Amino acid sequence: MATVPSDDPSPPSPVSDRVRLRRQAGRGSYAPDDVTAVLDAGLVAHVGVSTPDGPIVLPMAYGRTDEVVYLHGASANALLGSAAGTEVCVTVTLIDGLVIGRSAFHNSMNYRSAVVRGVAREVVGDEKVEALRIISDHVVPTWDSGRPTTDGEVRRTSVVAVPLAESSAKVRTGGPVDEPEDLDGPWWAGQIPVETRFGPAVPEAALDAAVTVPARIEALRQAAR
Amino acid sequence: MATVPSDDPSPPSPVSDRVRLRRQAGRGSYAPDDVTAVLDAGLVAHVGVSTPDGPIVLPMAYGRTDEVVYLHGASANALLGSAAGTEVCVTVTLIDGLVIGRSAFHNSMNYRSAVVRGVAREVVGDEKVEALRIISDHVVPTWDSGRPTTDGEVRRTSVVAVPLAESSAKVRTGGPVDEPEDLDGPWWAGQIPVETRFGPAVPEAALDAAVTVPARIEALRQAAR
Repeated sequence: MATVPSDDPSPPSPVSDRVRLRRQAGRGSYAPDDVTAVLDAGLVAHVGVSTPDGPIVLPMAYGRTDEVVYLHGASANALLGSAAGTEVCVTVTLIDGLVIGRSAFHNSMNYRSAVVRGVAREVVGDEKVEALRIISDHVVPTWDSGRPTTDGEVRRTSVVAVPLAESSAKVRTGGPVDEPEDLDGPWWAGQIPVETRFGPAVPEAALDAAVTVPARIEALRQAAR
Repeated sequence: MATVPSDDPSPPSPVSDRVRLRRQAGRGSYAPDDVTAVLDAGLVAHVGVSTPDGPIVLPMAYGRTDEVVYLHGASANALLGSAAGTEVCVTVTLIDGLVIGRSAFHNSMNYRSAVVRGVAREVVGDEKVEALRIISDHVVPTWDSGRPTTDGEVRRTSVVAVPLAESSAKVRTGGPVDEPEDLDGPWWAGQIPVETRFGPAVPEAALDAAVTVPARIEALRQAAR
C-alpha cells in the first residue's frame, strides 16, 4: 500500500544516492508533488549547516517555488551567511499522530516530512524581492495587504535559495505494526491524532477598530494543517 | 522584559561561545530549566549531523534526563550510526503563533525552541534499557502498561545520548514590533495563535473491546502542548 498520497506513481529511484531513503523506504517518495505537498503544509523548516564547530540546526520561515526553497533572515544572520555557497539540508516535518503499540518497541508517530539537500545560493535583485514575497505569503498572504516593503528593508534581509532537485518525502499513516503473537494480549493499542490548528486572530491593542481582520486570515481557521 | 519564563534569572552567558545566541539574544536563555521546559513540551527533535556529503537533518523521537537528550533508531539507522562519537545538533521547536505586522518585513512567529550541541555517545547496557523507557514515555507513559520489551528488541535498537551541557533556549511571545510611523496606518496587525492538540484516541480495530484506553492517554486531551 502506498502511504504517500499522489496522483502519479512515485519514480522508482531518487535523483541522487544521498537522498535515497534508507529506512522504511516503502513510506517514501521522490515525486516532486509529494515533496511540495509537505512543504506547503508546514509552518517552519529546520535548516542544517555544517560548521567547523559541528552541525547547527535552526528553525526558519520559508517559502517555495517549483524549483527552490527560499530561506530568509537578517543580513547579520550567521547561519544564513555561512550557508550561502555551501551544502545545507532543509527539513520540514508535520506530526499527525502518536502511534501506541502493544509493546513500546512498536510505538511510533504518524508524520509527513520532506528533506531537501543542496547548495544554498544567495538571492539578489528582483528575485530577492519576489522571494521575500513568497516567504511572507507561505502560510497566509499578507504581502500585498500590508505597508509596502522598502528598499532598506530588503537590504537588511538576506535570502538564499536551495534547489528542490535533490529531495524526498516520507509519510507514515495508520496504526502500530505489532507482533502477530501480541495481537490478542491485554494491552491497549491505537492512534492518538495530533492536530495543529489556528486560533482566532488577536488584533494589536493599538489597532484602529476600523481595520478589520482580512478574510484570508479568518479563513485560516477553517483548515487544519 | 524577559521573554523566557523561568523562576531563576538566566545566567548571563552561555557555557560555550558556540551556543551563544547571535540574533535577538534578549529572547534567549541558557538556564537549564528553560531548555528542559522546551524539550518536555516538544514532540519531535530535528537532529543534524555533518556528513562528507553535506549536513543531514532528520526528525526523531527523543527523551531526556537532567543531563542528556536520548535519541533512538533501528540499529541499521545510518544517521544514528554516523552520529555516535561525532558532533550533532538536536533542535526542538514549538510554533505558538503567526505574527502579522503592518508590513511584511515585521511578520514573525511566536515559538519556543531549544538547541543542544554536543558529541553523541552510544548508549549500552542497563542505561540503554532505561533510555528506551525514557524515550518511550516522553509524551505519554506506556512502557510499563504494554508488553514488556525483549532483549532482542533492545538489541535491534540503537540509542545515543547528547549532553545538555551546551544548550540554549529561545522564546518569542507577543505581537509584531512595527515601525512607529506605521502604527496609525490602515493595515491589520496582530497574532494568530497556533494550537497543537491531541484528538480522541482511536483504538485498533482488532483490539479486544475489554481493553480500555489507559487514563494517561485520555489525559492527553486535557492539555495543549
